Amino acid sequence: MDSAQRFLAACRRQPVDRTPVWMMRQAGRYLPEYRALRETVDFLTLCKTPELAAKASLQPIDRFGMDACIIFSDILIPIEAMGLPVSFGDDGPQIERPVAQASDVAALRVPDPVQAMPAVLETLRLVKRALLNRAALIGFVGAPFTLASYAVEGGGSRSFARTKTLLYTQPRVFHELLSKIADTVAALAVAQVAAGAQALQVFDTWAGELDPRAFERFALPYQRQVLEAIRGTGVPAILYVNGCAGVLELMASAGADVLSIDWRLDLSAARALTGSGVALQGNVDPAVLLTTPQLVTEAAFAALESAGPLGHILNLGHGVLPQTPLACAQAFVDAPK
Amino acid sequence: MDSAQRFLAACRRQPVDRTPVWMMRQAGRYLPEYRALRETVDFLTLCKTPELAAKASLQPIDRFGMDACIIFSDILIPIEAMGLPVSFGDDGPQIERPVAQASDVAALRVPDPVQAMPAVLETLRLVKRALLNRAALIGFVGAPFTLASYAVEGGGSRSFARTKTLLYTQPRVFHELLSKIADTVAALAVAQVAAGAQALQVFDTWAGELDPRAFERFALPYQRQVLEAIRGTGVPAILYVNGCAGVLELMASAGADVLSIDWRLDLSAARALTGSGVALQGNVDPAVLLTTPQLVTEAAFAALESAGPLGHILNLGHGVLPQTPLACAQAFVDAPK
Repeated sequence: MDSAQRFLAACRRQPVDRTPVWMMRQAGRYLPEYRALRETVDFLTLCKTPELAAKASLQPIDRFGMDACIIFSDILIPIEAMGLPVSFGDDGPQIERPVAQASDVAALRVPDPVQAMPAVLETLRLVKRALLNRAALIGFVGAPFTLASYAVEGGGSRSFARTKTLLYTQPRVFHELLSKIADTVAALAVAQVAAGAQALQVFDTWAGELDPRAFERFALPYQRQVLEAIRGTGVPAILYVNGCAGVLELMASAGADVLSIDWRLDLSAARALTGSGVALQGNVDPAVLLTTPQLVTEAAFAALESAGPLGHILNLGHGVLPQTPLACAQAFVDAPK
Repeated sequence: MDSAQRFLAACRRQPVDRTPVWMMRQAGRYLPEYRALRETVDFLTLCKTPELAAKASLQPIDRFGMDACIIFSDILIPIEAMGLPVSFGDDGPQIERPVAQASDVAALRVPDPVQAMPAVLETLRLVKRALLNRAALIGFVGAPFTLASYAVEGGGSRSFARTKTLLYTQPRVFHELLSKIADTVAALAVAQVAAGAQALQVFDTWAGELDPRAFERFALPYQRQVLEAIRGTGVPAILYVNGCAGVLELMASAGADVLSIDWRLDLSAARALTGSGVALQGNVDPAVLLTTPQLVTEAAFAALESAGPLGHILNLGHGVLPQTPLACAQAFVDAPK
């Protein structure tokens, strides 16, 4: 099996010669070649310049040999294309004029991805050509709740106070925001498949901050819409929620082929909650990759054992941390080999 | 039943006339009378001046009539008493010389609480006298893992990178740190009971950031030590972990009478994981209290229904947020009445 076959078989819970492996945020600051690239260009320009974004996407594959290559981009690109300018500084993303009321939502566009977000699609084409099945090519979108939370908070948040206040007190406005984002990212996901993506990951990173009743109202229906659009194209869909333990049974009903699990529960416990209808991806704590190659190998083996060989993609429970030593990343990628 | 009887019966899973209620961080910045108090004195002086700390502890009881009164103090007081000076600024607590190596741990004291932390104990005596069973009196300590994470990070953290690097790469040093903290806070908890506390809450707020294997090695054994010391005094012990869904079965084995649950899973699901041997406390999302009294009442009713009437203490899933309107706090406290 080549890497792409192995990864796609695992997504579909078909037998594999060994468990496939990749890392969320594998293209990033822990790589010296990525830092060198960033010295010449700011983050947003990098996302929007297909030749450079393709280069960044391929850097971890060239160095470590993962089984899947996720495109280099940012989940907030569609938010910008909808009419909310985003800047990226050292403190993370900032949205100039956050969404606060119905008129802000009404002003948002649902853009045609081919017109409004051509860089992501061109990056996929370039990476596909360079990969030659050395790795499966993964596209991605942010899920509506997570993108809405950025749109409302104006950036990252700890308590999600503004988002939750808006969704509880003005649920219609919030649903309208979610609906416009869902239409946008569903179309972007489908366009990514047309541009060569062999699988799509949907990042609902912050949906685990909702209580299960709110998750069911404000996250799940829009996950379903996006996942259904992806499945309509025939490629497997992966759903990621950070802090998912309390909503995992709900997630299992969202229609994903693969659920991507954070590190706060064992994969065997996750399997007990999801049943056997989905594959699982994960779930080593990215902080373990700050230690030693030997400890990384042990943690990866524990995840492999907890998940079992069928329907598992070895990954981290969240993105690679910038301080990660290269030898630890290599040990992680080598663990299932 | 008076409030103290009601609260203590619920801790022991005995029948109650109605579900008791209180709120984590109920003495705090959302109260105008607390803000007025803080205009005259800084946070640490407030913690260390029994007359003022007693006043702060009683403010929410006088205003809202909760069934339990938690003492006003800070979980880091014992860390300071162990030899690590702490300052409290707008960005949260700061520890001047964080723990980084074996010699830093060796230098820490295990202080006698009566000698080293007299203010907490005197505050309890003053509050007990003023309460007259209007509410049960709760003392508290931070759990060893959570306090160790502050000692190592030097303050709050998102990724707990330093803490996890130390515990994985130098587990003996980290265990020695945990052991010294456990001895300190176990003694402090017992002294609080002697000073009048009718129940003790153990805050292992950040232990939910560990993966379950690390939780079992670095959090659970020290929770057990502290909880056992509390149970030896005859008062009920409450264990809180934020983001507990993935480690709840482990938590249920820690020896607490009550498990305090964050909002990210339903109490009925929590009950299924814990079995019937413990009471449950929680678990409304504190962000719901930023909305309207009606929405707060609905959320509180949902928690009451999900938990059932036996062995439940209505509470939030984390502390009251500073922006919380008073009418929403009142609606929460009134919900079970």
